[in-house]
Amino acid sequence: MNTQRPRVIIIGAGFGGLFAARTLVNKPVDVLLIDRSNFHTFTPLLYQVATCALDPSEIAYPVRTIFRKNQNIRSLLGTVIAIDYANKIIDVQIGGRQLQERYDYLILATGSIPTYFGNDAFREHALELRTLNDAINLRNHILSLFEQATWEEDDAVREAMTTIVVTGGGPTGLETAGAIYELYNHVLNREYLHREMHTRVILVEMQPHLLAPYPDKLRQAALEQLRSLGVEVHLGSPVKEVAKDQVTLANGTVIPSYTLVWAAGVKGSPLAEMLSVPLQRGGRLPILPTAEVIERPGIYAVGDMTYLEDASGQPYPMLIPVAQQQGELAAQNILAEMGGGEKRPFHYHDRGSMATIGRRRAVAWIYNKIQLRGFIAWLAWLALHLITLLGFRNRLNVFVNWVWNYFTYDRSVRIILEQGRDKTVKSEK
Amino acid sequence: MNTQRPRVIIIGAGFGGLFAARTLVNKPVDVLLIDRSNFHTFTPLLYQVATCALDPSEIAYPVRTIFRKNQNIRSLLGTVIAIDYANKIIDVQIGGRQLQERYDYLILATGSIPTYFGNDAFREHALELRTLNDAINLRNHILSLFEQATWEEDDAVREAMTTIVVTGGGPTGLETAGAIYELYNHVLNREYLHREMHTRVILVEMQPHLLAPYPDKLRQAALEQLRSLGVEVHLGSPVKEVAKDQVTLANGTVIPSYTLVWAAGVKGSPLAEMLSVPLQRGGRLPILPTAEVIERPGIYAVGDMTYLEDASGQPYPMLIPVAQQQGELAAQNILAEMGGGEKRPFHYHDRGSMATIGRRRAVAWIYNKIQLRGFIAWLAWLALHLITLLGFRNRLNVFVNWVWNYFTYDRSVRIILEQGRDKTVKSEK
Repeated sequence: MNTQRPRVIIIGAGFGGLFAARTLVNKPVDVLLIDRSNFHTFTPLLYQVATCALDPSEIAYPVRTIFRKNQNIRSLLGTVIAIDYANKIIDVQIGGRQLQERYDYLILATGSIPTYFGNDAFREHALELRTLNDAINLRNHILSLFEQATWEEDDAVREAMTTIVVTGGGPTGLETAGAIYELYNHVLNREYLHREMHTRVILVEMQPHLLAPYPDKLRQAALEQLRSLGVEVHLGSPVKEVAKDQVTLANGTVIPSYTLVWAAGVKGSPLAEMLSVPLQRGGRLPILPTAEVIERPGIYAVGDMTYLEDASGQPYPMLIPVAQQQGELAAQNILAEMGGGEKRPFHYHDRGSMATIGRRRAVAWIYNKIQLRGFIAWLAWLALHLITLLGFRNRLNVFVNWVWNYFTYDRSVRIILEQGRDKTVKSEK
Repeated sequence: MNTQRPRVIIIGAGFGGLFAARTLVNKPVDVLLIDRSNFHTFTPLLYQVATCALDPSEIAYPVRTIFRKNQNIRSLLGTVIAIDYANKIIDVQIGGRQLQERYDYLILATGSIPTYFGNDAFREHALELRTLNDAINLRNHILSLFEQATWEEDDAVREAMTTIVVTGGGPTGLETAGAIYELYNHVLNREYLHREMHTRVILVEMQPHLLAPYPDKLRQAALEQLRSLGVEVHLGSPVKEVAKDQVTLANGTVIPSYTLVWAAGVKGSPLAEMLSVPLQRGGRLPILPTAEVIERPGIYAVGDMTYLEDASGQPYPMLIPVAQQQGELAAQNILAEMGGGEKRPFHYHDRGSMATIGRRRAVAWIYNKIQLRGFIAWLAWLALHLITLLGFRNRLNVFVNWVWNYFTYDRSVRIILEQGRDKTVKSEK
């Protein structure tokens, strides 16, 4: 490796980090891409892993495979534990050892984590859906409780075991609630022949409507589609208390349930704190329009962890396309900085957004102009994900499988795998 | 459910238990099939999960799906903790509760577990390959060490991280060693561009030859094929000591390695001890030729956990076909007992055995007469597994994927997933 070339370290192999790295392929820089996992996760389909429709590996791409032919991109499986921005060095934990890695440019892209809005006690009982492990844990949880419920004689306990509360009226909440409803009613209930199981899926949203950023008509369409599917929707009242076997809403409603899926909100990755700059609300790191961190020369940040306002004074949303476009911009601006060119400010190319609600139901808001709902919106959702997935690896058969499962109501990945840890590697850590 | 009908409890949903249950489908009995997992594992392909070729769900079939149309087969996800054979009741742990279940007939089919031949201290460092969790742990272990090795500056430590010792010269040992060798050399080394990695795969067998039950020519062919692939083979010396970072053989050879895969031997499932009868060597439960347990009326046992001698005084081997045929026999004899018919003794229909050694290499001993080696034996292995897999679920696409991976050297399932446990369900236990 040519050690004369500038060294770019990217922390995080999510959408922001990956798009930054792709932009730097075969450019005159040495890139080190660091992540705590050895794979990139296609997060929009996490809920499908959680609901037994997809295998974990079908939405996880080994980082090394993505860059297998790119000599200037090196990857490191490790955890960043300190950033010495004065000396441009980061400390990384890998296995039982610590490495120090020098950088000329640094791109932070570590995303976001769930927030409980001050109620951290909720975390003990809530199940999250942000990582592949979360998805597998939720799958194990749902399947285990359903098995236990078949042998439970107490009617109230049994029904609580097959009642799921999802909180959060954004796309993740809607998709998860819809997919769990279908798992319950189209798959599990058909295989539990010896006892009729009563299942409930309840979506709770603090605000008086779902899908806050959407136009009112689509919000209403989403609500109608959820209810027509069979999901109960509680609007205008946040979760107030969470116990092992019940969820209490602020309006006093008590829902006996052993499962609360937390899709209510996220905050910026705690890595931002390592830069010792004042953070914006939600723990988000303020950046310049060029994606640079203020007063931290050579450091860029992109995606969910950052805070940047658009022309109207609103912060850009914590969405995958923003992260992707900021990742590309940060990489381009580093190249511009190296070549003495001019850095560009961020312009968000917003193609709109969509949310699916179970099979054949969805809402889509394309280019923030065209409003679609129902089957046509669902087809648009399907097409978009097909295109995006294939961009990552050319594995048509994976997607064919997935569409097949989706149409046939087959959910083949219905295994409860509660793993022990790898003992030998663990003992080194 | 008609409570007048005799109740058959089957413990274990491996090959023996599954074939017993299938034989009782639509017969005038109520069957309860108990397992600690909610799936049956196709164990012959575990090594392919461990070496990144297959997804866990591709060799795991939910028990409920197998019997989804069979009203007289009920399944229970739980752990049997006691057998009261005098009163014909078993105690089962399910979630946080205990159930008591009454039986008229009981079939034990809980298989075998690894044995360290008295050296239980080996267990701390050895990795097993008997369950789906074992396979995922081994996969995590191999991939994690390879990642760590790329950043290790000490040459000796780095080489120990990419050296794997497999002990056991049976089919599992051969298949695992061959598959790891190919994973190292055809997949991983192609993606680690920045440092040349030295990898070693070493197979250790206590006896002076591999594949003890096979004729000498095939033993020799297996040895030659392993060595031509690149696997180092140490014969005639067992493992004497195991530390975190090295394996010592009885002949004094010290192999620096962080990975010992234990495929050296198994013993009968500890469940056999619940019957309070004297066990045979290897903890195996003696059975009559009818698969009944001596002096325990109504109790049958099948498969690896049992001990039964053939006409020549040799015990039947701990192999899947024996378990399958004994499972069917036990079920048939229960039906005979109910109907006043005559119980049949066990006759093993031995179709021979085979072992594969990486791509295009194998040995096969068909009907214990025809000896095949090399490519033709490998094709025979492939055909047999194709047929057997499809017997369980009619999912041609899974197998097509698998053959595709196998031929293209693609190993898509290369993700390190070290899961936490499901907190809510766990807190109930």
